[in-house]
Amino acid sequence: MKAELLYEGKAKQVYRTNTKSQLVLSYKNDATAFNGKKKAFFEGKGRLNNEISSRIFTYLQEQGISSHFIKRLNETEQLVHETAIIPLEVVIRNVATGSILKRLGLKEGMPFQPPLIELFYKNDELDDPLINDDHALLLTNITVSELKEIKAKALEVNTVLRELYQSLNLDLIDFKLEFGRSITGEIVLADEISPDTCRLWDRDTREKMDKDVFRQGTGDLLEVYEIILHRLEERK
Amino acid sequence: MKAELLYEGKAKQVYRTNTKSQLVLSYKNDATAFNGKKKAFFEGKGRLNNEISSRIFTYLQEQGISSHFIKRLNETEQLVHETAIIPLEVVIRNVATGSILKRLGLKEGMPFQPPLIELFYKNDELDDPLINDDHALLLTNITVSELKEIKAKALEVNTVLRELYQSLNLDLIDFKLEFGRSITGEIVLADEISPDTCRLWDRDTREKMDKDVFRQGTGDLLEVYEIILHRLEERK
Repeated sequence: MKAELLYEGKAKQVYRTNTKSQLVLSYKNDATAFNGKKKAFFEGKGRLNNEISSRIFTYLQEQGISSHFIKRLNETEQLVHETAIIPLEVVIRNVATGSILKRLGLKEGMPFQPPLIELFYKNDELDDPLINDDHALLLTNITVSELKEIKAKALEVNTVLRELYQSLNLDLIDFKLEFGRSITGEIVLADEISPDTCRLWDRDTREKMDKDVFRQGTGDLLEVYEIILHRLEERK
Repeated sequence: MKAELLYEGKAKQVYRTNTKSQLVLSYKNDATAFNGKKKAFFEGKGRLNNEISSRIFTYLQEQGISSHFIKRLNETEQLVHETAIIPLEVVIRNVATGSILKRLGLKEGMPFQPPLIELFYKNDELDDPLINDDHALLLTNITVSELKEIKAKALEVNTVLRELYQSLNLDLIDFKLEFGRSITGEIVLADEISPDTCRLWDRDTREKMDKDVFRQGTGDLLEVYEIILHRLEERK
């Protein structure tokens, strides 16, 4: 099914297929943090991210939120609609943690009501800088109304996933989304949604159940991701 | 007329007066750059900034753009309406230069059409970080519609001042505005508008005619500011 390798990122490979406009995403076992400055290999991480991300995208589609996701193919691969990724990281924050604390002088754990939206320019050389809406319009090919659409969709994803995670006894603290442009020109939710791209805190213990255990060296990444997958599988 | 000193900033002192709700702004001879990391004293700079800023605010008022400015009092002082300064630096950029070049990987001299608006959070400890609209609403007491009003007014100031400077053979490259809240709750254009707070390039020679000569150590600040004042005075 897979044809030539189109692109290799930090956490995934992207392959062409025999079907025009469909791609295979292959999840790698690498973990990176701090814009690639911290790196490690975790046998089995690709499977976990693929399984979790496949379940999340499927759930979103059941809730009426479409994406590039077509289906899970096997343990580490998904079939997706081809999109041209828009070089924006769209971050939704429900609770203050991570980079925003130092940047704006906030206290960890402060809730954002309404949720805070941040845009970062996906550019490794520039270290993915925070940008505003004007910058986004300058640096990408999206229009004002497409930016509005992207933000509205990100907030919708937040509402749906907060509820889902709450049912798994997890608080969705923040997460990053990426969007792409389909071959017919539509804006489409893309990339992955996994503990690599969000922060999840256990509602009872307040333990961090996401890539922060790797960033901060406070726990076993595979064990934590396995728990997330397990809770997702157990949902009735 | 001046009563007690209310506040002393890097470039100005603010005094109470006998009239409630009116303050005196006294322009100092200090120049600072890079968030206070570079400092110098220029005998006569206070006068130049006060004279230039008084003329600019007067011109804006003639063009229907109100501000906190009431009148020039003497060589270094202005009378202004009291406002509570909103901790935002509102930057309008017509041409790429300065901090944005490295931050977004842009080429100096690239024009922005439409002009680019940036907000920075006025906070010395945090080094005045770039923020987006959501952050501004979180960190200040302004509403969504007041933020819209602030941006619209900043763009209006840009249109009027670009024309004014063009008539002085200068290109208005970028500038910073601050806004305050009056004692009756209105949003009011405040602070100063001078070569300390904007970038001006000579239209013929492309020479920098603003605080960049101090930041970059490429010229005589007093001489350059004197030229700006002279061109303003010569306008018929």
